[in-house]
Amino acid sequence: MKNYIKPDEWSIIEEGFDPQHHQISESIFSLGNGRMGQRANFEEAYSGQSLQGNYVAGVYYPDKTRVGWWKNGYPEYFAKVLNAANWTIIDINLDGEQLDLANCVVSNFRRELNMKQGYLKRNFSAKTANGKAVEVEAIRFCSMVDDEAAAIKYTITPVNFSGNITLTPAIDGDVVNKDSNYDEKFWDEVSKANQPDGGYVLMRTKKTGFEVATGMKFSLLQNGQLIQPQVEAIAREKYVASAITVQAQQGRSISIIKYVANLSSQNHKPENLVANLNDTLNRIVAKGFDTMLAEQAAAWAKKWERNDIIIEGDVSAQQAIRFNIFQLNQTYTGEDDRLNIGPKGFTGEKYGGSTYWDTEAYCVPFYLATADQKVTRNLLLYRYKQLGKAIENGALLGFKDGAALYPMVTMDGTECHNEWEITFEEIHRNGAIAYAIFNYVRYTADEAYLVDYGLEVLIAIARFWSQRVSWSQAKEQYVMLGVTGPNEYENNINNNWYTSTLATWCMGYAMEVIEKVKVADKAKYDALAARINFDEATETSRYQHIIEKMYYGYDEKLQVFLQQDGYLDKEQILVKDLPKADRPLNQKWSWDRILRSCYIKQADVLQGIYFFEDRYDLETIRRNFDFYEPRTVHESSLSPCVHAILAAKLGDEARAYEFYLRTARLDLDDYNNDTEDGCHITSMAGTWMSVVEGFGGMRVRDGKLSFQPFIPAKWSSFSFHIGFCGALLNVKVSKDGVQIKNTSDKSTTVVVYGREQTITANAEIKVNIH
Amino acid sequence: MKNYIKPDEWSIIEEGFDPQHHQISESIFSLGNGRMGQRANFEEAYSGQSLQGNYVAGVYYPDKTRVGWWKNGYPEYFAKVLNAANWTIIDINLDGEQLDLANCVVSNFRRELNMKQGYLKRNFSAKTANGKAVEVEAIRFCSMVDDEAAAIKYTITPVNFSGNITLTPAIDGDVVNKDSNYDEKFWDEVSKANQPDGGYVLMRTKKTGFEVATGMKFSLLQNGQLIQPQVEAIAREKYVASAITVQAQQGRSISIIKYVANLSSQNHKPENLVANLNDTLNRIVAKGFDTMLAEQAAAWAKKWERNDIIIEGDVSAQQAIRFNIFQLNQTYTGEDDRLNIGPKGFTGEKYGGSTYWDTEAYCVPFYLATADQKVTRNLLLYRYKQLGKAIENGALLGFKDGAALYPMVTMDGTECHNEWEITFEEIHRNGAIAYAIFNYVRYTADEAYLVDYGLEVLIAIARFWSQRVSWSQAKEQYVMLGVTGPNEYENNINNNWYTSTLATWCMGYAMEVIEKVKVADKAKYDALAARINFDEATETSRYQHIIEKMYYGYDEKLQVFLQQDGYLDKEQILVKDLPKADRPLNQKWSWDRILRSCYIKQADVLQGIYFFEDRYDLETIRRNFDFYEPRTVHESSLSPCVHAILAAKLGDEARAYEFYLRTARLDLDDYNNDTEDGCHITSMAGTWMSVVEGFGGMRVRDGKLSFQPFIPAKWSSFSFHIGFCGALLNVKVSKDGVQIKNTSDKSTTVVVYGREQTITANAEIKVNIH
Repeated sequence: MKNYIKPDEWSIIEEGFDPQHHQISESIFSLGNGRMGQRANFEEAYSGQSLQGNYVAGVYYPDKTRVGWWKNGYPEYFAKVLNAANWTIIDINLDGEQLDLANCVVSNFRRELNMKQGYLKRNFSAKTANGKAVEVEAIRFCSMVDDEAAAIKYTITPVNFSGNITLTPAIDGDVVNKDSNYDEKFWDEVSKANQPDGGYVLMRTKKTGFEVATGMKFSLLQNGQLIQPQVEAIAREKYVASAITVQAQQGRSISIIKYVANLSSQNHKPENLVANLNDTLNRIVAKGFDTMLAEQAAAWAKKWERNDIIIEGDVSAQQAIRFNIFQLNQTYTGEDDRLNIGPKGFTGEKYGGSTYWDTEAYCVPFYLATADQKVTRNLLLYRYKQLGKAIENGALLGFKDGAALYPMVTMDGTECHNEWEITFEEIHRNGAIAYAIFNYVRYTADEAYLVDYGLEVLIAIARFWSQRVSWSQAKEQYVMLGVTGPNEYENNINNNWYTSTLATWCMGYAMEVIEKVKVADKAKYDALAARINFDEATETSRYQHIIEKMYYGYDEKLQVFLQQDGYLDKEQILVKDLPKADRPLNQKWSWDRILRSCYIKQADVLQGIYFFEDRYDLETIRRNFDFYEPRTVHESSLSPCVHAILAAKLGDEARAYEFYLRTARLDLDDYNNDTEDGCHITSMAGTWMSVVEGFGGMRVRDGKLSFQPFIPAKWSSFSFHIGFCGALLNVKVSKDGVQIKNTSDKSTTVVVYGREQTITANAEIKVNIH
Repeated sequence: MKNYIKPDEWSIIEEGFDPQHHQISESIFSLGNGRMGQRANFEEAYSGQSLQGNYVAGVYYPDKTRVGWWKNGYPEYFAKVLNAANWTIIDINLDGEQLDLANCVVSNFRRELNMKQGYLKRNFSAKTANGKAVEVEAIRFCSMVDDEAAAIKYTITPVNFSGNITLTPAIDGDVVNKDSNYDEKFWDEVSKANQPDGGYVLMRTKKTGFEVATGMKFSLLQNGQLIQPQVEAIAREKYVASAITVQAQQGRSISIIKYVANLSSQNHKPENLVANLNDTLNRIVAKGFDTMLAEQAAAWAKKWERNDIIIEGDVSAQQAIRFNIFQLNQTYTGEDDRLNIGPKGFTGEKYGGSTYWDTEAYCVPFYLATADQKVTRNLLLYRYKQLGKAIENGALLGFKDGAALYPMVTMDGTECHNEWEITFEEIHRNGAIAYAIFNYVRYTADEAYLVDYGLEVLIAIARFWSQRVSWSQAKEQYVMLGVTGPNEYENNINNNWYTSTLATWCMGYAMEVIEKVKVADKAKYDALAARINFDEATETSRYQHIIEKMYYGYDEKLQVFLQQDGYLDKEQILVKDLPKADRPLNQKWSWDRILRSCYIKQADVLQGIYFFEDRYDLETIRRNFDFYEPRTVHESSLSPCVHAILAAKLGDEARAYEFYLRTARLDLDDYNNDTEDGCHITSMAGTWMSVVEGFGGMRVRDGKLSFQPFIPAKWSSFSFHIGFCGALLNVKVSKDGVQIKNTSDKSTTVVVYGREQTITANAEIKVNIH
């Protein structure tokens, strides 16, 4: 755990340069606009430890997989988000000496991620080995207004000398992925050109053939005045640059504004890429840096209007929650249904930048509440469009008749992961995808989605579950053998309660939606049934039989749901009684020892209780929470939020807050010592959930929002924004009471502490805190 | 399945050249002498598909392992037997044209592995693209008399031309392992030299630093007369050769005799390697090819005296059983306790050439009966000497106080394998190592071994098991969680009956041996206990408690032992009802589907019943056999033999024979389509067991050999040799009766069909067949 980020309500701030923190900061200070993003690498050369990263959403490479022992059914490729052309480069040469902070005495170093306005700013003073002192300020951002554009303003002032300063802005396509399995380079050059005021490279990915054109234009200012210095064009394979030499005078600043555009063949015909790139560059150059920056601030202000959570009385918590919200918005804007939310977003290449069940289980609630419903709809459509591949994936594993198994990890719908216990057995992901449809519809009431897309996915998933269970002659019940639950510290177990519960829920929900769709649009239903050979009577009667005859483990004595068969045969030593030196288990214990222990990585039975809370009375929830939480090591970033929400539900406010703390500053404080690989983007949504569903006690029930708020003791107030079925609410919880403003023109009815109240358009209500 | 090997009682014969069969034949016709060995690669160049392989026992390389997802506790290296310098090369050039069977019209091709005399002979006629016709005969062998020596006699006769023939014998150290994980080469050159009549290369392995000197000397004959042709020395990195050009005359044969020696730093000081190599070469050159070959035949005759199994009335079965015995003797001679029996022996590089539990469970019974007891003793000492590493390995997985977990795969005692479900969980291997000690002692009565070595290993293993079980509060019994049994088609299961049975047996046997050793040599016992901190009272009382309170699954209704918890929850469709297209499962089904099915890869419960047969009455054995065998797919080469033995025990002679057939010609007929990777050496011992323990019904009971023979219907008789406690028996079973000759000077008592009979020295008994 680190503690070097300065507290600030609206900015992430690092002061003083510590190379030990640099890679962590490269992750934390990352920028993105949903279309492209990048780690906070320095503009000028840096020979110290650094993880270079520039990413273009949806552009991936199927890297040939590496595996110890091949199992039949493994995929051959792992789709990776690629490190793409680096456009941040502005090399600096001071009278023949390269500026490189690794070789300088650095002072006044300050990095700021301004979340309010959406830019990264860096200041420092440096003295080179030759004794040249400079001051630098660099500001950059990825435009939220024009998501193919970015800009950098880099200002350098010679402090103790006059002489030649050469600034070399470059576009470098000759990049590698650190996680390349066979040290392969993934990009080929298609073309490149130098221009008097810029240049571009057009790269093409191997195998997938994505083309990305990355270009720059620059202008130079000395002491604020435009100048036309001497420019020397440089080109080598996959690389263009312009060496700009300026007669620098002591104390007079030199600024370069580097306008950047990044266009991909996903959005442009390959033959138009270069022309469109130039159009974009010309457009932003015409706009100018200051206007772009002002537009950026305005765009973020608009985002914050619907997204912000204000916490009063705790700057550190305030900073953390905004950081989580900021990063989520940088990662995914919901404009494009081909994109999704990689666990590291644009902050690193780990986990391939691909889609996991995190999206449906954790991110959907956030986007549902804080963004237009089309955002979540696009996340759902992403899966809808991959249904064919999910059916193929099921077929690979022996399922038939249109049964779909969505992949554990994917970019384009093809499974990428290859650990049998995950790829083949962590099948609960399929349920989360159905649950997200349910969640979307209960939140938005957009039942048309079910007719046009949802039902088809739900039937394919129900078909999978109905084939995946098997009949146990011994139990005279259906069983679910050989699965891995969300608790990945158990593998290949039988009758995981969560998976079985989700499976029968999926079948039941599919049947419910069939009825709905038949009523809503019988013709469309009939057409769908015909197209997918859905024999309703036969298939649903099998679903029904499974729902009635499914086996779920339950311990009569403890009165808890059994995570899996045999769980109580394990030695039941609680986490609190584990030696500290043994933690985290996944670094200290061999895998078999973890597997045969009772320790739980993340919510499993409790994840099911969270999903289906309404089915269980408070005492049932409490017994299961009290049994499972003390056995949970929370070694997944996705674990604490569900526990925070349930602890809050159970009235255990102190523990709810404790769990919240574990998730909120996970990356800012490098809690797990892994932030240098990138930030935990998807679990950031869990932080938001902890506040809104935990402290705010927000639920959707019977088509209405309900709240059961409390306020953590340390805070004087917190407030959040919620969009729900067209209404926009601002909920503020303080010691004085709960205030809910309806800032929209639509009247809505909410339930606060169990009492229903209507808030008319632009009105507000106030309720005492309980 | 192929069927191209000609039936012959004493030889393996291939007639006609089919490049499709070449790699299979390279495996089948392999040569070895326990110290070195090689695949049957051609001497002359061959541009067709071939797997080059020359191996030196015990010389390995720790190849950096390749794994998809790292688990804590995985080993970083996999020790591989290396492809070593190729000494078989004799390139042939006919007036400027290379002889290469891939580019010739080949006729009269014949390959013979003469098992009686221990050599490989190849004849062919070839016509080159230029129309040159030659006849070739090549004979080679690895000497059983001098295990660092080998020789080749290669005779070529120009049929339709006179002209220059250049023969280029070479030693090529520039070889690769096909299974190299990172396409690395494993050998560096230390030195090399050309000599007028030969040359050598001295190579050193990377990392492990083994040095191997491989040298040759040659002599040339024309029409049987020694000649001194023109020789041109050739050398390049890691390679020496001599191009010998002979004025060939139509119809007159040219022979080259290539004497080879292969010395390793395991047996010689590195600084002496080259001098000793030359000594060896000079010695064998002085001896001459014909004498060497005669000695080879004599050495094999001696082997066969104790090893041969004669089957009358079935040439194919006769050939097969001799092939199995021949390969086992080529692979391991028992001279060196640093060596072991890799699953592929010297016939291929697959599985790393390392030690598996196959040795203890399958090979030990063979060597016990057919070789001097020191052979098995050396196999036991191999593990004894690795005890320290087994204790370290246990410690890596969290075990303590001297608990040993022997590795799943090893060369020098370090674990090599890395699939968590195998490496960490297939722990029954530890029991097989204890069982081999038990087997050795009951067979040889060498109780001194227990005092000096055996007990120390047994305590370390008992300690492991006593820590590996855990107490189930729910069952109020000890359980064994998270294991993989011999049936690797189940992973991470609880309470595998075989593993649990073996575990408590180990603890019980350790306690029994403690008592024995205390009586035999109290001082040594006390010294051992002090050295390994063995607190007898405390530790054995824990063993005793576990033995008394161990949980074993049992189904009351079926009255069978339960392979594992939950086995009866699986869908019970028998193997016979599986679609043919689904077999073999490991190629047709995804891993999860295999895991949740009831199908068994190889004997598991039945392996336990085989080990501990005396504990169970015939009806118990029958019920378990009748339950498990129909669920067994026998997709391991180790499976059929145990089933053959049990079927024979149950009086099901037809099925016993059927299982025997599956194992006997596995490689000769390329049953599993994988012989090209190498032969299944360790399972060859299972074939022997099928005959001796199956058809012969041989057991050791109360210190005596007992027999319960029957004769397969197709055979007119079969006979085998058994050494037991100093006596040597020849058992012949025919329709007429069972004849047992004692060919030794030691009287012995045997039990035949339950009746005890003493056979005095050099006498015989005869009993009617039952």
